[in-house]
Parts: sequence; C-alpha cells; structure tokens
Amino acid sequence: MKERNNRPQPTIGVFDSGFGGLTVLRALLPLIPEARYIYLGDTARLPYGSKSHDTIARYAVSSAKFLHEQGADLLVVACNTATALALEDIQQSLPIPVIGVVQPGAHAASISTRSQKKSVVLSEVRERAVSESDGAESKGLRLSSVQPDGSPPKVLVLATQATVQSHAYTRALAAHNLNAYEKACPLLVPLVEEGWINHPVTDEVLKIYLTEALTEAPNAQILLLGCTHYPLLEPAIRRTLATLNHPLTVIDSAKATAQAVAAHIGTNPPGLKTQNSKPTAAFYATDSIEKFERLGSGFLGQPVTGVRHVDLGG
Amino acid sequence: MKERNNRPQPTIGVFDSGFGGLTVLRALLPLIPEARYIYLGDTARLPYGSKSHDTIARYAVSSAKFLHEQGADLLVVACNTATALALEDIQQSLPIPVIGVVQPGAHAASISTRSQKKSVVLSEVRERAVSESDGAESKGLRLSSVQPDGSPPKVLVLATQATVQSHAYTRALAAHNLNAYEKACPLLVPLVEEGWINHPVTDEVLKIYLTEALTEAPNAQILLLGCTHYPLLEPAIRRTLATLNHPLTVIDSAKATAQAVAAHIGTNPPGLKTQNSKPTAAFYATDSIEKFERLGSGFLGQPVTGVRHVDLGG
Repeated sequence: MKERNNRPQPTIGVFDSGFGGLTVLRALLPLIPEARYIYLGDTARLPYGSKSHDTIARYAVSSAKFLHEQGADLLVVACNTATALALEDIQQSLPIPVIGVVQPGAHAASISTRSQKKSVVLSEVRERAVSESDGAESKGLRLSSVQPDGSPPKVLVLATQATVQSHAYTRALAAHNLNAYEKACPLLVPLVEEGWINHPVTDEVLKIYLTEALTEAPNAQILLLGCTHYPLLEPAIRRTLATLNHPLTVIDSAKATAQAVAAHIGTNPPGLKTQNSKPTAAFYATDSIEKFERLGSGFLGQPVTGVRHVDLGG
Repeated sequence: MKERNNRPQPTIGVFDSGFGGLTVLRALLPLIPEARYIYLGDTARLPYGSKSHDTIARYAVSSAKFLHEQGADLLVVACNTATALALEDIQQSLPIPVIGVVQPGAHAASISTRSQKKSVVLSEVRERAVSESDGAESKGLRLSSVQPDGSPPKVLVLATQATVQSHAYTRALAAHNLNAYEKACPLLVPLVEEGWINHPVTDEVLKIYLTEALTEAPNAQILLLGCTHYPLLEPAIRRTLATLNHPLTVIDSAKATAQAVAAHIGTNPPGLKTQNSKPTAAFYATDSIEKFERLGSGFLGQPVTGVRHVDLGG
C-alpha cells in the first residue's frame, strides 16, 4: 500500500455478494482501462438479497475491508443490496472513496426523464413551427421533472427483497424529484444463476412481476434494473415489455455506476490516463473457485481465470 | 446441561440452513411428543445448497455445536445438503448421536421398493392361481431388489446442486442395492420461498426438471424428495407426474427421518415415555427473527413464535 502514490494506475476494488457485480466490472473495463481491478465475490455468504440489515452490513464491511487491505484506492459496491443497506456502514469503515450503485442508477433515471421531457417539449415546439429547439432543450433540461398532471413521473425499480424493503431507490429518486415504485423479484437471481436467460419460464416470471408492477405504476416511463444480475435479463425484459405493449426506457444501474466511477476518477485522477495499458483484474471468492470461474464468465462477458479463495470467516 | 440425566424428556436438536428442516420437526412432533426440541435455522448463511464442501462443513459444525451447547442429547441434521456434505464432520465434532436425512430417505426407498416387488410377486402368484401369497410375500421381501431385466430399480432423487454433486444418495441407495439417478433442481427452493407452492410457473419448472430426469431414468419407480423444502411441493409434484403420465411412489425424506429418530429413541430411551406432555420447541435463527416467524409457519404447519436471534459469526 505504501507505494500507492508512486503508481500511475488507480486500484479499483469492486465488491459484490457474488457474480452480479461482474456486470459493473464489465462496464468499467472499457471506460477506465488504465486501472488495476480487484474483484471480491462473497459467494460463501450469498445471497444478501433476502437477509437483514445487520447481517448484510457485517458481511459487506468485512468484504470492503479486505479489498482496502489488498490496495484498493477506491471501492465500488457493485451490489444493490449492500449499497441499499450498508453504504454508510462501509463508508464509515474505510478511508477511501466508496461508490455504490443506487445513486448512479437514480441519476441516470433522472437524466433519462429529462430527455423524455425534452422530447415532449421539442415536439410541442415543432407543432408550433418555432425554430427554438436549442432553447427548448435547455428549458427542458432545467424544468422540474414534474408531469403535466402534477404528479412526478414514475420510475419502476426491479430489485431484491432486501433492496426494496430498504427503500433506498425511493429516497435516491426522490432527491431527483422522481417518484418510484419498487418491485421485489426474488426469482430473477435464481433464474439467471440457473442459466435460464432466454427461457419461456423466465419470460413467464417476468410477465407476472411486470404485470403486477405496472398495475401499481401504470404511468411508469423508466424501468430501473436495481440488481446487478438483471442486465443479463435485459433482452428478456424488453421482450416481455413488448408483449405487454408497455415500452419503457430501461436503465441499467451497472452501466450507470461505471460512468459514475469514470466521472469521479476524471475529476480526481490519482495519476490517471498516463498509460494506455490493458486493464488487469484479480479475482477473489469466499466460496468455490471453480464455480466462480464457471459462472462468472457469463457475467463478465469474457473468461474469468486465476480466481483465489479467501476466507472472511462465517 | 448438568441436570440432563435428571430430565425425563430427551432434548432433540434440529438443525437446518433455514426453514426446510421445520418439515422434519413437523413430522417429529406427533411421533415423539415427549421430547423437548431446539431448532436452529442458520438463515444468515443460507442457502447451503449452492456452496462448497468446506464452506458447508464449517457452517454446519458451528450450528451443530451451538445446539449441543443448548443441551441437545441427540442432533437431527434436518438439511439434505449438510447431511450429504458434512455428516461425518458433525459426528466427529459432537459426543452425542447425530442423525441425518439421507440414510433414512434411502432406507424408506428400499422398503418401498420391496413392497412394490412384493406386489409384483403376488400378482404373479395370483395369475398362477396358487394360494401361496404368504410364502410369496416373504420371498418377495427377502428377494434382492434387482429387476427382472437384471438392472437394479431406479430411484429418482430430486435435490439441490450440492447434494447431487456429493452423490450421497447414490452411495446410500447403493448400500440397499438400489440404483439412483440424482437431479439437481436449483429453482425449487426459491419457488417455495416465493410462496408459489401451487402456481403454474412452479408446475412448468417441475415439468421441465421431471421430464429431463425421466429421460435419463425412464424406469424409475420411486421419487425421493432429497431436500426438506420439497415436501411443500408434494401436491405439485404428484400433479406434474400425472400430467407426464408417469406415476412414481413419492418418498419424503423429512418423514423418513422422523421415523428413524423415533426408532433410535425407542431403542435407546433416555427416560422416554414417562410423560405424555405437549411437545415444546425453542427456535433460534441467525438472521431476521421476523422473517423466520413469518416464513417458518408454512413449513411447520403451525405458528412459529418466540424465535431468538443467535450470532454464529460470519
């Protein structure tokens, strides 16, 4: 750790209860190729999504401390449940910047809503045949995101039970003046881990969850994927929304988080962009190495090799 | 613990990674009402079913030791995964009898196969119009359970990934001269915990799993439920087998285990049957008490109250 200030590359620690956080790493690699990455999957204690705050906080803090001990300059909590329930606990336990997935997801939803608002304004502008699109755009961007009928636009958040119960997305979206409906989808992680990414049963489960959610939030415009497993289901989700004749803008919190990390590093570069090296990643798992390598590749989109086992107790 | 020898009732510790073991306790209560029960659900570290041997053994041994410290005279490992992967580890770490769920399930399958064999022999006897059914019955019971074509009868075992990979059921059934086909069903536990006990999606998932399994084991006669969550799906499983036009004798390892415990206590009674008191049960969980009480009742078939939290590390 002592030579940290002499290193040209930042070391980014990425942590998840399992494999899902690899979708965040997948988005980070092309955005910040100069970085060294250390990934920890706390697979011996997964899933976090169905457990209580105290248990999740204990697991998440010990995982975060491990990555700091391995030399991380910056920590990405690439797990919605750990972010939703334990971001503050982690931030208080570490002397380095800690970025979670909830705020970036909410921010991306906010930007997307403004673009939609902009489109509405622009079409109104066009109807009036007034060539003021630039002005309309800036007005659109500065408008509050309150809908014409006075109610805020709805963002539909799909997440695990624990993330939903924490209402972390409701709070994060409210800060952007966006109203959220959060829907717990406990079967989606097991379906992804079964490998049923494009499967009629998964489509049927999605249809049930989305129908229930859209009954509660019929005016939803944005669908926020509030679990890092869900990006693998994005094609199935889009297919199901088409079947339901209810298109929504899909926001992937994994990609949004990678952009937030890039923005953070861009404004606070610890010797960044002095090299153009191929990114390197070291992987640790608290349970079976073989299983991590086998399942992880699907999430990372490239082979996961050289995984090392670490025992964090429990 | 010191007054153990003065107590008329045995104290039976029952342990599972979560709620499934409550189906074993449910079967135990009417069979051994004189006992005092202590149940531990290691819910902070569930599920065991997808984890490695070393991790499962570490969790299971610490859970078992806790129950011994609480005064258990006898321990029931009411979890197929913990039994399959860690029964010996637990037995070596405790000075009390330890009964798992795999051997009782295999024993029940063996008895059931013999009964089926007996039925075949009896019908052959009837066809010959010879009144020797008693002799035939005893011959049938003493016959090896090898089928007419020379191959052993097939037992189809449904279980978690970890239980299947351990091949504990294959070994236990081979000791009864029974050939097993083991099928991992990773989605069944999440479906039960979602509460989709009688649900078209669950029926569809069961149809897929059972069709795959019966393609590999078309001559199966017995279906062994090798996970303590699965008894809740027994009606759905029977319904699906009927749809597939493939009736099988369904053996529930939870009930079989309760009978094995009763048999063990019957032959080694620590002051048993001196009272006819209502059974008492104390419950411990390593994660949320509220969730344990809420979900546990469905497995136990009666309210689960007074659950206490215990931290076993991790």
